[in-house]
This record gives sequence, C-alpha cells and structure tokens, in this order.
Amino acid sequence: MTDSPVGTRIRTAAVIGVGTIGLGWAALFASAGLTVRINSRRPDAEAHVRKAFELYAASLPGGPADPAGLAARLEFEPDVARAVEGADVVQENAPEDLALKQDLFARIGAAAPAHALLLSSTSTLLPDALGARMADPGRLLVAHPFNPPHIVPLVEIVTGERTDPRAVEETVAFYRGLGKTPVVLRRAVPGFVANRLQSALLRESIHLVREGVVSVAELDEIVTSSIGGRWAAVGPFRAFHLGGGPGGLRHWFEHLGAGLEKSWQGLGNPPVDEETVARILAQAEEAFGGRTYEELAAERDAKQTRVIAAAGTDADAGTDAGPAQRA
Amino acid sequence: MTDSPVGTRIRTAAVIGVGTIGLGWAALFASAGLTVRINSRRPDAEAHVRKAFELYAASLPGGPADPAGLAARLEFEPDVARAVEGADVVQENAPEDLALKQDLFARIGAAAPAHALLLSSTSTLLPDALGARMADPGRLLVAHPFNPPHIVPLVEIVTGERTDPRAVEETVAFYRGLGKTPVVLRRAVPGFVANRLQSALLRESIHLVREGVVSVAELDEIVTSSIGGRWAAVGPFRAFHLGGGPGGLRHWFEHLGAGLEKSWQGLGNPPVDEETVARILAQAEEAFGGRTYEELAAERDAKQTRVIAAAGTDADAGTDAGPAQRA
Repeated sequence: MTDSPVGTRIRTAAVIGVGTIGLGWAALFASAGLTVRINSRRPDAEAHVRKAFELYAASLPGGPADPAGLAARLEFEPDVARAVEGADVVQENAPEDLALKQDLFARIGAAAPAHALLLSSTSTLLPDALGARMADPGRLLVAHPFNPPHIVPLVEIVTGERTDPRAVEETVAFYRGLGKTPVVLRRAVPGFVANRLQSALLRESIHLVREGVVSVAELDEIVTSSIGGRWAAVGPFRAFHLGGGPGGLRHWFEHLGAGLEKSWQGLGNPPVDEETVARILAQAEEAFGGRTYEELAAERDAKQTRVIAAAGTDADAGTDAGPAQRA
Repeated sequence: MTDSPVGTRIRTAAVIGVGTIGLGWAALFASAGLTVRINSRRPDAEAHVRKAFELYAASLPGGPADPAGLAARLEFEPDVARAVEGADVVQENAPEDLALKQDLFARIGAAAPAHALLLSSTSTLLPDALGARMADPGRLLVAHPFNPPHIVPLVEIVTGERTDPRAVEETVAFYRGLGKTPVVLRRAVPGFVANRLQSALLRESIHLVREGVVSVAELDEIVTSSIGGRWAAVGPFRAFHLGGGPGGLRHWFEHLGAGLEKSWQGLGNPPVDEETVARILAQAEEAFGGRTYEELAAERDAKQTRVIAAAGTDADAGTDAGPAQRA
C-alpha cells in the first residue's frame, strides 16, 4: 500500500482489446488516475476509444469526468508484448476463444513484469485452461466484470489450481481500490454465479411470456417495480431472512421450506424455438423499437448509476464477512 | 375523476387484517389522505397499528410523514360488515385460508356499497375461488402487493371469469393514484409473476450455496452489486436487448439463443433437505445474526426507498405500453 491512485502499487494498466468490456475497464482505470496502455490492432483504435470515452465519462463511480482528461492517460501499443512491458496489471478482453487466449497469455506471461497481475475478463473460461501454455500461471486470475464494467460494481474472481494466494489478495485490493466489489468464488462453476442467476430468471421470464401471462414490457415493468429494487437493496437470502419476521430465515424455512421444492416443479422450462423467439422479438419491437440503442443505453447507464449510488453497495461491502476478509 | 386525494372517487378504504401487509396498506392509504377503517378483532388493534406507523411513516412514497397525522386518519371497527359499510375500497389481508376468505368476501359483498372495489392481497388464491360464495363477484379482484406494500411499487392485478372490466380500470386508476405500479396479468398462473421469478432465483441461489461455490453472504453481495442494480434500472428483456448492442434482442438471440437451453440444463435443482437448510441457516446466522430484525428491516426499507426513487420507476411507468394503456 503506497501512494498509488488506487491505494496499491499499481500505476500502469494494460488493457487488451477494445470491445465494450475493454473500453469500460479503460475508462474506469483512467478515471482512477492510472496510466492505461491500450493494446489493439485496429488502425482506428485511438479514435474508437476517444469516441467511447465521450459516452462513458458521464457514468463513472467518482461522478462525471472530462473525456479529454481521461484520454490524456492513454497510450496505444498494437504489439501485445510491448503493451504489457512494465505494466502492473493486465486486463485481457479478447474474444471468447480458448486457443486465442492461451496464445495471448503465453505471450503476456513472457513479456509482463513478474509482479504484474494477469486478469482475464472471460465469462466462460477458467484460469487453468487459460494458462495452459504459460511457464508460470500463478498470477493469472479470471476477473469477470458485469457489463458495463465502469458502472456495475461486481467483479467475480475465479482462481485456478496454480494461482498464487498473494495474487488473489492483490487482485481484491486492486479492484476495491477502484471502488468495485470483487467476490472470490470458493470454487469454479460454469457461468460463474451472476450469469447463472440471470439465466435462471430469464428462463422463467421467457416461460411466462411464452405462456401469455404477461408481455415483454409488462415482465420488465414487474421486475423493475418489485424484485429489482429489493435485490439492489438486499440480496435474496437477506430478503427472505427479513421475510421470516423476527424469527428470520429459520422461521421462513419452517413455514415455506416444504413448499419450495413443489413450487420449483411448477416453474417453466421453455423451448427456445422459432415461435417463442418470434413472439418475444415482436413484443420487444413494440416495447423498445421506437428508440435507438444509444438513447436506451444512456438511459440505462444513468439510472443504474443512480441506483448503485442509492443502494450504497460499496459503503456496506464487507459488513457481512465478505471476500475482503477472506482473501 | 374528481377531487379525491388519489384522483379517483375513492375517499374511504377499509383494511381487513393488521398483519404486515395490512399495516403497510393502511400507512399508504392514510398518507394519501384517505379515511382508513381498520377491521381487526385484536383487542390491542389500535395500539398495534399506531406502533407500526412509527416505523412505516419514515418510508412512504411521498417522503417521511408524521405518524400521529397518519393515525388521525384511522377508524377502528372490529365488525367486518360495519367496517366495509360506506367504504369505496376494501383491501383484504386475512390469512391464506380459502374457506376463511370465501366467508369473508361473502360478508363483504353483502355489506359494502355496490360501487366499492373489493381487493384481495392474497399471493396464492384466485378471484373465482375467492368469490365463490358471493352473489356478484364482479368487483372482486386480486391486488397482490410485494412486501412491504407501502414501499414496493408493484401491485399484481389478477382477474377472474366474472370480473367487471370497469372494476379493473378503476382498480388500476386507484393504485396509480397512490403512486403504485399496477400490472394486470393477462391470465392467472400459480404464484403470479414476481414470486415465480423470485423462486427461480432462489432455487439457483440455494444450489450455489449448497455446492459450496459461494456463501450466503457472498451470494447476497453478488446480487446487490450486479443484477440487483441492473433489474432495478431495466428489466431482463430490456437488459438483454441492450446486451445485444445496436442489433438488439434479435442479435442477442442469434448469437446466444442456441446456447440458452443448454445453459438451463446446467442450472441446479437442489433438494431442500435437512443438511441444505442447516448449512444455509449456519451461514445466515454468521451473516445476519449479530443484528436485530428491527435494525435490518429499517436498513432494508431506507435503502429500498432510496433505490426506488433513484430508478424513477413511477416516472417512467407506462412508457412501454404498460397496463394503464391496456386496462
């Protein structure tokens, strides 16, 4: 812990790839005062990143920033070995292609400083597979953000057989310093945690629309006006703990536990066939079709930023024996 | 539409039952300027409601209210027929016992004015069953709130075979006038919508804790720091529409649709056995055990109220062809 902008030794971050996720990380790192080295082979990489920063600068954890000030912290290096040279952290955001990422991490591992944290934004691959071609994958971790990474606090940290525990600790400190909420999974599971939960909700959402219970727009309205606010404020277990009254979760299980398995049997498992997709797309067109992607995305970002601030997610992090204590 | 406090003809509401749900409705109705007639056989009903108002007055849609001012709008009537006499709306919150509610609605139907809306807070029973013993169940609807009803905007409206369409329209107008978000289900389904979605998320949450991927506290932290904020800001379909980039939901289905069914096969279906419950309760005790129900509930209410205001749920209601247009 020294005088680095994020409270760790980290001063220079290499961001590999400038898709949506890479751009979000770049904006966040720059807003925290890091030097950000962008690695992309796109000839228009600089213009592309600058354009994205015009949008992203409005929704940063520290409040709106000056896009030009953020861009001033950028360096551009199309060669990956030179991009990670001297970097304290490398955030990789290449396409979800195992062979491609294995090759990338072999080259990153050979060129990055020994102390650098090597972090992959992958949502599907595991550290042991990603590092298969590295001499020492001890400092390679999955650090999976939730889109957009400059707005949503969560970073799911997944370790491998050969991960160095000190690298986990440093990774958690790094993201906490950036105002994120890193959670270290106790073991790896396909899809990690947040996307599995999201998938479970989507399955039932598609089922209910398919069955004609509600429309796409009505389902969204139900979620934003009920469980969304509840889960932004308290997670599912705390919600049911309080749902049990003064007797808490124990009382809740005693009274509703027996009915749980039965109620799960009644949940849907819809086919994602042509008819189902057509129905959803027609209703989505009716609901969102009149507005552009940019309008809708800007509205989502502004709302979500307000919600996150209101929930005070970061202020409370760690209260309940979170991963900072554990790592 | 006249000069009534909630923009409808409704001036007097009878609230049947003073459990958590009844108390929340009573606080909300009183804060909107209605006369609230409390029907309960509890000898301490008045003291009980006044005590609850001390807590509830802090978290009302219009901002904090004076508990004594709210309580001044209350009348207490232990006889149900006299309680609904002259009432414009009856909100029933009796225990989930079909025979009991059928008897109650038979008596309510016989004593309430012909124009009164007869609304049940039930989370499991349907209007046709509830009104089986009524001469005319045309103005009986299910109006299921999400706990706590004075804070969470959603009210799920469920109609029956014999429901009068005008009663649906008036019910929607009544709740909108109170600042709620009523959504009329297109057809009834067990558990309605929000609780089914919640149940789907809980199933996967219990699975992940049972499998040792995360603890109870970590799972809650993951939800509050990712999907909670997302779903408070935008519902699942809008989120995936934006996840598809400028190509929208169509692009998203084209690229991920095929993998959806496969990913659903990998989701959990845990037994709710003794070992699972014991594991969850031990972790819940570690996470929440140090704090009282009152502390945790007050914190949840304050956060959730801030989140709902930040998401601006009500301001946007109806943008996407919501139920107000449909009813």
